[in-house]
Amino acid sequence: MTSYAKAIFSNPALLTDLYQLTMAQGYWRQGWADRRAVFHLFFRRAPFGGRFAIACGMEAVVEFLKRWRFTEEDLGYLATLKAPDGRPLFCPEFLDYLAGLRFEGELLAVREGTIIFAHEPFLRVQAGLLVSQLLETPLLNLVGFPTLVATKAARVARAAHPDPVIEFGLRRAQGFEAALIAARATYIGGCVGTSHVLAGKLWDIPVRGTQAHSWILAFGDERRAFEAYAESYPSSCVLLVDTFDTIQGVKHAIEVAQKLKEKGHRLLGIRLDSGDLVTLSQKARQMLDEAGLNDVVILASGDLDEYRISRLKAAGAQINAWGVGTRLTTAFDEPALSVVYKLAAIQDGNGAWHDRMKISAETAKQTLPGILRVRRYYAAGQSQMDVIYDERDPQDLQLPAKRGKEFTFDEAVELLQPLWVGGEPVQEVRSLKEIREYVQRQLGAFASEYLSLRRAKAFPVKMARGVAIRRRQLRYHHEEPSA
Amino acid sequence: MTSYAKAIFSNPALLTDLYQLTMAQGYWRQGWADRRAVFHLFFRRAPFGGRFAIACGMEAVVEFLKRWRFTEEDLGYLATLKAPDGRPLFCPEFLDYLAGLRFEGELLAVREGTIIFAHEPFLRVQAGLLVSQLLETPLLNLVGFPTLVATKAARVARAAHPDPVIEFGLRRAQGFEAALIAARATYIGGCVGTSHVLAGKLWDIPVRGTQAHSWILAFGDERRAFEAYAESYPSSCVLLVDTFDTIQGVKHAIEVAQKLKEKGHRLLGIRLDSGDLVTLSQKARQMLDEAGLNDVVILASGDLDEYRISRLKAAGAQINAWGVGTRLTTAFDEPALSVVYKLAAIQDGNGAWHDRMKISAETAKQTLPGILRVRRYYAAGQSQMDVIYDERDPQDLQLPAKRGKEFTFDEAVELLQPLWVGGEPVQEVRSLKEIREYVQRQLGAFASEYLSLRRAKAFPVKMARGVAIRRRQLRYHHEEPSA
Repeated sequence: MTSYAKAIFSNPALLTDLYQLTMAQGYWRQGWADRRAVFHLFFRRAPFGGRFAIACGMEAVVEFLKRWRFTEEDLGYLATLKAPDGRPLFCPEFLDYLAGLRFEGELLAVREGTIIFAHEPFLRVQAGLLVSQLLETPLLNLVGFPTLVATKAARVARAAHPDPVIEFGLRRAQGFEAALIAARATYIGGCVGTSHVLAGKLWDIPVRGTQAHSWILAFGDERRAFEAYAESYPSSCVLLVDTFDTIQGVKHAIEVAQKLKEKGHRLLGIRLDSGDLVTLSQKARQMLDEAGLNDVVILASGDLDEYRISRLKAAGAQINAWGVGTRLTTAFDEPALSVVYKLAAIQDGNGAWHDRMKISAETAKQTLPGILRVRRYYAAGQSQMDVIYDERDPQDLQLPAKRGKEFTFDEAVELLQPLWVGGEPVQEVRSLKEIREYVQRQLGAFASEYLSLRRAKAFPVKMARGVAIRRRQLRYHHEEPSA
Repeated sequence: MTSYAKAIFSNPALLTDLYQLTMAQGYWRQGWADRRAVFHLFFRRAPFGGRFAIACGMEAVVEFLKRWRFTEEDLGYLATLKAPDGRPLFCPEFLDYLAGLRFEGELLAVREGTIIFAHEPFLRVQAGLLVSQLLETPLLNLVGFPTLVATKAARVARAAHPDPVIEFGLRRAQGFEAALIAARATYIGGCVGTSHVLAGKLWDIPVRGTQAHSWILAFGDERRAFEAYAESYPSSCVLLVDTFDTIQGVKHAIEVAQKLKEKGHRLLGIRLDSGDLVTLSQKARQMLDEAGLNDVVILASGDLDEYRISRLKAAGAQINAWGVGTRLTTAFDEPALSVVYKLAAIQDGNGAWHDRMKISAETAKQTLPGILRVRRYYAAGQSQMDVIYDERDPQDLQLPAKRGKEFTFDEAVELLQPLWVGGEPVQEVRSLKEIREYVQRQLGAFASEYLSLRRAKAFPVKMARGVAIRRRQLRYHHEEPSA
């Protein structure tokens, strides 16, 4: 909503959880505000039952950090918060301290559009403990949903391949901003366009559309409605044929297509939005072909996702283009990514680093300690393995053997690259088209067994020896002498 | 993201689907731009397997309409769009027309917080055909998600009753705006507070928080971490006990609680975030009680929703407060509401109304024709029945019999009330607290069989006779002489 948007723009530092602020004041009181800390951001499990994700949202992170600061208004609000005993939750000295705060730490991140796997840090913050803590909530928010929905788009586009997929989900998105994030991320992930006009304007994404049932209902007479639309849009006309009776609708569309043809134009397509899409598309294809309209596209829409598209294609549906809305834009079957942001190392008063990990009763919730990076190894242009290593152990990169054989490779790429250093962003801004092509190149560099929609094989992600050893040590001595 | 927020704020009229604009130009070319049309907004199926929803988002609709207009920048962008034949998609005269456009129609809506059911119009637009069409997409977006997530909150709060539920979902929300919408709507739906600081500032929602694992990890030593927190927050301290070993964590919390007690304070609570919550909460309760700490609350968090809360309570979990994040804030198990916006009547050139309905192969996608309102009947303070009627048929309100008996009632309430008339909002703005109380009052006025989490009974929603007759007629004569 527009007034929400204004607040997001004006008060970015309040886009956090209250406990980040109470912990921040606690660190400040301990004199630990500026102790360097390392936090890793990663997801615990790939979404949608798959094995991979497409990292997204890094540009948004940069935009956010540029604006991140506490305004007078923010501090005024915080000063009103009271503990149950009636005393102010935050003391004036702490609020003064917040007033001058900026993000001056170091941020590493994978390049936007990078294929990533569970437990790999894809964003790493190294900054004062207090600031890193305050940023937990917004950073998770900023990368979680874009990564989720870019991944969904990659899956949908793979299912539809080689047919184009257009994103149609604005109306059912979780707000306007969610719709914008989704339009951008789904284009990165593999869609060819969006129906969302503002997204088109912001990022030069191709905008596409057909027509709604209300157009046909406004005329009452389907044929007249089709004719009027074709008159206005002789070269960009896709007719919606299911308002009354789909087969009758196809007949009307064919009549309009013939007239367009006579005038030197062509009907781009028809759209099916309900009913048995296999039978209806086959029948429509036959009718169109018999009328010599082999080049008229059949676009389908209505509760589609990668699973339904796969099934329709397997069942022989004659569909050449897909409009995918709700289930893509909201990532319907798994609308949140399991992203977490975990403290992994902290300096003590003497500048010595201490590793940290959460132990937990649930093994899946245990974390990786250290100051980590991720290296991806390629052989013959194909990704072979990722290794998570501690940057303080450069000698630790002896590679594990693979299936009993010595591991060989001809290229190694550091996935985490500086994104923000010394108070400024350092990565060049790439156009969406570049990021989109980067995604496609990478998808081509993974064996398809790792990318399957269901029952994909896990891509090998190994912990370097040093990380594994530190982890074991911390598990046994989790109450090491405090920092 | 903050720059998305700026665009949402600055370019509200582009928050629509491209086809709305191409249809709009089509209507304009037909000379139909100002023909009055009636569109109903409703949902097809209640979410989460339930039977009801809590209408929400009306205030956002008003805010949006106040700002809704095409800016020079918007029109400049639209002028750049091309059809496949290279010609501009929109002609300059049409873009000039858009420049002067405002919403001057009439909007009816249920009061925010009203309990509504499938197929009932809960927002109705009566305005020029062109404007009503352009608003389809943003109106669906503006009410769909808030209604969905307010409903989710009502379900979660019912499951937790009488324990309080706090909304914790900012980090996993589909963007910042989605998080704000959710914080507002979940408070309306029944949560007692949120962790989201900006939401607290915007609407005076109580903000709450505990502490994160990173606080404990930063200290390394759990007891010291607890002590330091309790020192800073002696009256608002909730200790997270599962970082290393939960039972050990409870012991440490008890030690801190005893010290707080000696100083005249009390530990508010402990938080369990992983593991077997039934066993751990029982054990923790026993330990706390044995230490004389009967008033220390046990708060649980971690992948909770109404189903899991119900199961935990049924299994005897000793939990008194619930922090619910991802699954509430994203409406995880059904992250979009099946809202639609359908043309139901249109005036012809002579001012005569023509009813309209979509027929479709799928019965569930058929719509209700006419100019509809909804009346809710009460007897002895309990809601008995809703009747959808056409406001042009005042005589049509003879009430259907109920279970063979004549239907009696002592109060009838019109659910659709004017929200926007003659270019201006007409409803008084209510505080969130008022809306929240209104929700609770209504929930008390429905038999619980209609509100159950699973296998709820359908509340009786009847079509008035005239609506049913019009529907039948339109189905048989769907190609009536065109308007």
